[in-house]
Amino acid sequence: MNFFTSTKTLTHEGTMRMLQAGIERAEQTGQPQCLVIVDASGEVSGELRMSGAKFLSRKSALAKAVTAASNRAPSANIPEGFRPLIAAATGGSVTGLPGGLPIMLDGTCVGGVGVGSGSGEQDIEVANAMLSAIGADTFE
Amino acid sequence: MNFFTSTKTLTHEGTMRMLQAGIERAEQTGQPQCLVIVDASGEVSGELRMSGAKFLSRKSALAKAVTAASNRAPSANIPEGFRPLIAAATGGSVTGLPGGLPIMLDGTCVGGVGVGSGSGEQDIEVANAMLSAIGADTFE
Amino acid sequence: MNFFTSTKTLTHEGTMRMLQAGIERAEQTGQPQCLVIVDASGEVSGELRMSGAKFLSRKSALAKAVTAASNRAPSANIPEGFRPLIAAATGGSVTGLPGGLPIMLDGTCVGGVGVGSGSGEQDIEVANAMLSAIGADTFE
Amino acid sequence: MNFFTSTKTLTHEGTMRMLQAGIERAEQTGQPQCLVIVDASGEVSGELRMSGAKFLSRKSALAKAVTAASNRAPSANIPEGFRPLIAAATGGSVTGLPGGLPIMLDGTCVGGVGVGSGSGEQDIEVANAMLSAIGADTFE
Repeated sequence: MNFFTSTKTLTHEGTMRMLQAGIERAEQTGQPQCLVIVDASGEVSGELRMSGAKFLSRKSALAKAVTAASNRAPSANIPEGFRPLIAAATGGSVTGLPGGLPIMLDGTCVGGVGVGSGSGEQDIEVANAMLSAIGADTFE
Repeated sequence: MNFFTSTKTLTHEGTMRMLQAGIERAEQTGQPQCLVIVDASGEVSGELRMSGAKFLSRKSALAKAVTAASNRAPSANIPEGFRPLIAAATGGSVTGLPGGLPIMLDGTCVGGVGVGSGSGEQDIEVANAMLSAIGADTFE
Repeated sequence: MNFFTSTKTLTHEGTMRMLQAGIERAEQTGQPQCLVIVDASGEVSGELRMSGAKFLSRKSALAKAVTAASNRAPSANIPEGFRPLIAAATGGSVTGLPGGLPIMLDGTCVGGVGVGSGSGEQDIEVANAMLSAIGADTFE
Repeated sequence: MNFFTSTKTLTHEGTMRMLQAGIERAEQTGQPQCLVIVDASGEVSGELRMSGAKFLSRKSALAKAVTAASNRAPSANIPEGFRPLIAAATGGSVTGLPGGLPIMLDGTCVGGVGVGSGSGEQDIEVANAMLSAIGADTFE
């Protein structure tokens, strides 16, 4: 019987690289963003609110990040009809809003990233740029 | 690289002028209101609950004010289909209820105002009167 | 048997007069303040954060105001040794910090006022000025 | 009467520079840290949890940062005897723990920085390095 198993976690070098990549892509799109990165337990590893981003998007970006880390899948994968119920049952922590992606490395989920302030497409584009910068899987 | 940028904030003279203007317009309409003013980061600068206003409208007026300040746009501009999801993901902070307007001065958002207790039209009318009293932009 | 009794409440004209008087006295002392006024049930009637006041003093000023309204006595009257326990038992709502005074009119408590950002003496001086402006009792 | 006044805010370039400087100094001291930066109203601009830092220090670092921003002074300046009462009255937002410093630029407070996971001396050293990196005042 195995009482322990090995896993991976993101270093703070990885967190900073992700934030920097997110800023650069958001500046290219012209839409300032709130960027949140959480670990596999949903605890915040890093976050940045860009100048001109919506400050309340910190909250939605956090919900997107923890949803993706918990589900090990993009936040927008939650079926539409299921979204209001699961949001209510989790005090708003689980959201179907687009812009939350898991940080997957060699099949292991090491956390989640959430991006908010833009359109769903912009949010996902920036989140993917953050994942790509550290060699993690990206999502369509 | 710029580490700092210049911006504007509302003085307490401005806050008091807004509250007084809101009271006067609300008395004209015959509908007592809860009035809330927040700064550009959503921190409350001033608020007033008029005699006869619904006391829980303090909460919705606050949500309207912070939504407008965060989005730099009227709270009612949030698309209808998006409202339940974004409200849940932000713990109720982002609302699509009418009556929240940003305080825009020369293109800079210095905060938000939220009005609640009346109909959507009454709330917006009072919020506009508060903006007009300090020379800020008004909204249709 | 009497199922109902008469009481008094502060009008919004009274609330605005108190806020204005608090601002004027605070400007005289040179210490910007957070001013909070609550009704006899502890619900906020009005508040103002002056330019240059400590923004977290909104929270302590609220605690002072509700403490005074609940106890129908100055917040600083709470015995020193009792303060930590009662604060813990009420989630921080009851505070022994000076600057909270009840709004007493002809022996009836119609609410409380809380002032914060200055020294205890400054806070009490401003709170008394707010009470005096509406003809309510003042406190030493 | 002036309804508006001018002020300064930190850009996200400034926030990132501060985080990077904090990481470098913390690595030199050998003590991983939680770093939090807030604006002049206490809203989080950026944060980073270093590998090996205490995850609950995110909370204390936030309290240190908002305390410093609200008081426009180091968190440790709060008199010892006053600390338990003011912490209780503000729901834990105001703390006397060392490691919170205001971001002062030419006499204007543009926010606060909070550092937590090390000794008080280590926390202050890292916070000062973050301030120095953007040309803001440092503190003894």
